Amino acid sequence: MMYREEIEIETKEGISITDITKNVEEIVKKSGIKEGLCNLFIPATTAGLITNEFDFMLFEDIKRFFSNLVSEKKIYSHPENAFSHLRALFTKSDLLIPIKDGKLCLGTWQRILLMEFDIVPRKRKIIVSIFHDSKI
Amino acid sequence: MMYREEIEIETKEGISITDITKNVEEIVKKSGIKEGLCNLFIPATTAGLITNEFDFMLFEDIKRFFSNLVSEKKIYSHPENAFSHLRALFTKSDLLIPIKDGKLCLGTWQRILLMEFDIVPRKRKIIVSIFHDSKI
Amino acid sequence: MMYREEIEIETKEGISITDITKNVEEIVKKSGIKEGLCNLFIPATTAGLITNEFDFMLFEDIKRFFSNLVSEKKIYSHPENAFSHLRALFTKSDLLIPIKDGKLCLGTWQRILLMEFDIVPRKRKIIVSIFHDSKI
Repeated sequence: MMYREEIEIETKEGISITDITKNVEEIVKKSGIKEGLCNLFIPATTAGLITNEFDFMLFEDIKRFFSNLVSEKKIYSHPENAFSHLRALFTKSDLLIPIKDGKLCLGTWQRILLMEFDIVPRKRKIIVSIFHDSKI
Repeated sequence: MMYREEIEIETKEGISITDITKNVEEIVKKSGIKEGLCNLFIPATTAGLITNEFDFMLFEDIKRFFSNLVSEKKIYSHPENAFSHLRALFTKSDLLIPIKDGKLCLGTWQRILLMEFDIVPRKRKIIVSIFHDSKI
Repeated sequence: MMYREEIEIETKEGISITDITKNVEEIVKKSGIKEGLCNLFIPATTAGLITNEFDFMLFEDIKRFFSNLVSEKKIYSHPENAFSHLRALFTKSDLLIPIKDGKLCLGTWQRILLMEFDIVPRKRKIIVSIFHDSKI
């Protein structure tokens, strides 16, 4: 069986971080699937997914790190938001997380985070596909 | 049902970028699968996959960025192409993209890109595995 | 059918690299699955998975590179191990590797590596989920 749903998130301009774990957990619950795998996919080129701890101090470190790694002040060939595209390269367009006993197998501090790098607020879509096999 | 096929791409020496979206789209079409997930896997250590915009100016930015991030001029322990291995770390060996209505759920500007980092042209293989469930 | 098992690895404090390919290969063999896909997931925020060559000289290059990319000497907002979290961002929490003829489709030099970035030794769990379809 496969179950699919979409999450819509309105982001602030980059660099901003949104915890979408609860949104995914709700879909997993709704699917009724107890053992399986959950794929997240973001159809975007200036935003991406990561898993890490939810901690505002760590978020400050992450934002500062990406700002330094890919400077906004350099001259780029691609107009306007080249640095947004480059920063997104260091995140994932897809994640695949196991489901056990009806729950995502995340670590104690591990959360699913959407990172927005674009220079304007965006409405982002994340496609959630859950699949399982009756014989697991 | 699962459908599997391989793509072969002859690359130029790194840093070079090849858009393989059409190759994958053809396989999805041929599979006849309307709703499912498409896994791409590259059995390589000096090349990798990313998704991003297809734009030659952005490609210049990406190449320049990777060249600066992992310099070819430093002294490395691993002989010859250590910088190729290090650059490949910042790409993906696998992608998992949803299929809906027989089409990859890519964003408007989002393309599947093969990044070659090796110091000589290579023949690269990408394994495409598509799976679906009849009940989706 | 889906088959699931867990790997437990005791790591040394970061930056340390452990080749877990044999552990995964044993599980694939035990599962009896000939054609399918193998998902690895690490429920962690200061460690991650990569695929690359197993070579101690390359490991030295990788460790040196990550040490320089994310300095331990900078001042961070998140206490103690912010740099461990930041380094983990550049690895993967999940991998999805095709299985063909009962074997992982890895490249000649491609190995599955666990990268530990935390400041103390850790007991790490990797969840291995293998799925296939009888019609492949």
